[in-house]
Amino acid sequence: MREISLGLCGLGTVGTGVVNILKNHKEEIKYKLGCEIAVKKILVSDIHKQRDVEIDPNWLTTDPDDLVNNEEIDVIIEVMGGIENTNVLLEQALKNKKHIVTANKDLMAVHGQKLLKLAKENNCDIYYDASVAGGIPILRTLSDGLASDRIQKIMGIVNGTTNYILTKMTDEKLDFEVVLKEAQELGFAEADPTSDVEGLDAARKMTILANLAFKMEISLDDVEVSGISNITQEDISFASSLGYTIKLIGIASINNGKVEVTVEPTLLPQDHPLALVKNEYNAVYVYGEAVGETMFYGPGAGSLPTATAIVSDLMEVIKNIRLGISGNAYVSPQYKTQLKENREKYTSRFIRMEVYDEAGTFQKITNVFSEESVSFAKILQLPASSKETAEIVMVTHKISKQQLLNSLDKLKGLSVVKDIISYYRVDGEE
Amino acid sequence: MREISLGLCGLGTVGTGVVNILKNHKEEIKYKLGCEIAVKKILVSDIHKQRDVEIDPNWLTTDPDDLVNNEEIDVIIEVMGGIENTNVLLEQALKNKKHIVTANKDLMAVHGQKLLKLAKENNCDIYYDASVAGGIPILRTLSDGLASDRIQKIMGIVNGTTNYILTKMTDEKLDFEVVLKEAQELGFAEADPTSDVEGLDAARKMTILANLAFKMEISLDDVEVSGISNITQEDISFASSLGYTIKLIGIASINNGKVEVTVEPTLLPQDHPLALVKNEYNAVYVYGEAVGETMFYGPGAGSLPTATAIVSDLMEVIKNIRLGISGNAYVSPQYKTQLKENREKYTSRFIRMEVYDEAGTFQKITNVFSEESVSFAKILQLPASSKETAEIVMVTHKISKQQLLNSLDKLKGLSVVKDIISYYRVDGEE
Repeated sequence: MREISLGLCGLGTVGTGVVNILKNHKEEIKYKLGCEIAVKKILVSDIHKQRDVEIDPNWLTTDPDDLVNNEEIDVIIEVMGGIENTNVLLEQALKNKKHIVTANKDLMAVHGQKLLKLAKENNCDIYYDASVAGGIPILRTLSDGLASDRIQKIMGIVNGTTNYILTKMTDEKLDFEVVLKEAQELGFAEADPTSDVEGLDAARKMTILANLAFKMEISLDDVEVSGISNITQEDISFASSLGYTIKLIGIASINNGKVEVTVEPTLLPQDHPLALVKNEYNAVYVYGEAVGETMFYGPGAGSLPTATAIVSDLMEVIKNIRLGISGNAYVSPQYKTQLKENREKYTSRFIRMEVYDEAGTFQKITNVFSEESVSFAKILQLPASSKETAEIVMVTHKISKQQLLNSLDKLKGLSVVKDIISYYRVDGEE
Repeated sequence: MREISLGLCGLGTVGTGVVNILKNHKEEIKYKLGCEIAVKKILVSDIHKQRDVEIDPNWLTTDPDDLVNNEEIDVIIEVMGGIENTNVLLEQALKNKKHIVTANKDLMAVHGQKLLKLAKENNCDIYYDASVAGGIPILRTLSDGLASDRIQKIMGIVNGTTNYILTKMTDEKLDFEVVLKEAQELGFAEADPTSDVEGLDAARKMTILANLAFKMEISLDDVEVSGISNITQEDISFASSLGYTIKLIGIASINNGKVEVTVEPTLLPQDHPLALVKNEYNAVYVYGEAVGETMFYGPGAGSLPTATAIVSDLMEVIKNIRLGISGNAYVSPQYKTQLKENREKYTSRFIRMEVYDEAGTFQKITNVFSEESVSFAKILQLPASSKETAEIVMVTHKISKQQLLNSLDKLKGLSVVKDIISYYRVDGEE
């Protein structure tokens, strides 16, 4: 068996990790594959930069053509990030019959379906398990392990930064801005944290998961996203006194062939397994029709877990090459994309409002809810900051998003309601 | 592509579940495999028994030869249980080039290595992911997903019955015997619960996991086992006041090529993910050199999860048949079996003793420990039931099993020590 030649795009911490694993596990990898792997070219922006890993200087290049148009190279590992330029590069690689392993969720969420089709047309594989939750082989588990099951719902903590921030806000009673700053200093959050804290990163991962789980083309635009920057200590404390923990949860669910994908701050019962996933850890909770509840927990990011996931994917790709079945892993969308309407999106809701503390207030509010057929599981009333007002916190039974929006609209029109302070999804109680 | 023919040994709840999944997911399975699956024969003990599933009466037989010596049959699914007779049957099937899918942990723990070798010699597959933790694809994850990682330690809650009992004992402060009786009435525990409560069932699963993770022949006899029947409310309450939860944990660890496999009641920090696995759920925590901590959580048993796992395995076996790579999944033991000596088995320990409350007692006890170089992380002293005695509860720093045994020996020789009430492993704190 000839050796398999790799081109590596990017030599940051993940790329360096891949090179190290291939070197340190050379014997085991050879034993498992029956062939050797050799890095041939590495695309970098600066070939003279000092590196943390021993690299043959001839491997380094700044010219993508040395990889994508290099006949020697069988597999491209893409760990340089970026969307449009990277997409062009990978499209060219696929046209030249090169297989791809990537950790690039941004790219896969936006161009994934197109790239997967192009790969199939060229009998090539694209493996991207490292793109969703670095240390958790969740894509493989969804597609293989639960092959004979139907996925009904996925709930995931798929962004380490926001989970770290919410953990600190909850455990140490610190405000969002304070924890964000600390996370930035520690390197857990980026200088521009928008993509993480506003939920976009999580939405990209949920898009990838939903596509696979429901065999449907779901685009990033189909995901309703809200982030964590408005969550206050009061929200956390009210949630806690009602028995809930607030987490940024990505949810993808299917009912009667219709799908909803959201990323939003969600109240989970304190003894729900996802409520206990702390700090930068990720976890994906899967409800299968037959198997019931399963959860996969692990490091969501980090150069070593991500590099490990990439090498696992690489080994699958190489096995497929050797078996002559490259491209067969691809599952084309089987079902027509159908999204739930607002009146079909059911969940419990947490609603917190400030009301004027006068006779008849409570009745006016409950009238609104009863007009919308909204009933409650829990209600808490407390004095507010000012003397004329009170705070009401309610957790509804399952209601549709339409019922929620109608109720909020009507409440805003009531003179006794000073402010709807916050409202959140409540989930994980079925 | 011709259809694949199955022989099913056993038609209890799991066997019935398999038949139902194959029927209800016919289209999806065909789509994923590109071929159809047909049940040809089902081995039962009574062909006239009323069944919960629609079965062609011609499928049923009481004669194993109709399956194992039937040229039409490609794959045998074994869900009838039993060890020696079943082993004979499966050996014959393998000699006749039939592939096997089994959920039989008892069989695989005892005869697994031999059967796997025999399968390899006949270019056949044996898949047994359903044998360890029904709803968790842990064997596949260990062998595929973490392919480029080295497993250092596995900690598992792999027996649903004992986890159910310990959850009730902890949450409802009930005694072992009371909960066991309730569990038996609810069908969560067998009439003869010995194999579960004394840890043997968990030991079988840990044997299977350790063999795969460390690529070493580890037999059931190499596992040190103790069960949960001696755990008292006092143990649980002392553990709790020190911040721990008691779980029956299977642990397989490797250091410098030497292995230790144990199943024993273990104190885990209350915020350890395994501490929060409740009721009949199972979970397997894996420490990989590169990927760090990952956990897989799901239903440990139940006919549907187990049937689902079997069908997943079946699909892998059929893919391998179609690819002509049957038997290639087998990984022969790569390393010489080396077990840790007692002086190499390191962990923290919880020790609880009743001592005579007189001058110098504490000093005599601490002298023993300091002779054995044992130091402490936590110490609790409380009045005991009688007025002349006190109870001392200690949690050591990491010590070897040899240090533990030496210390206990010496303590028993002290006149001030009335009784060593209990001692447990403490783990999950690194």
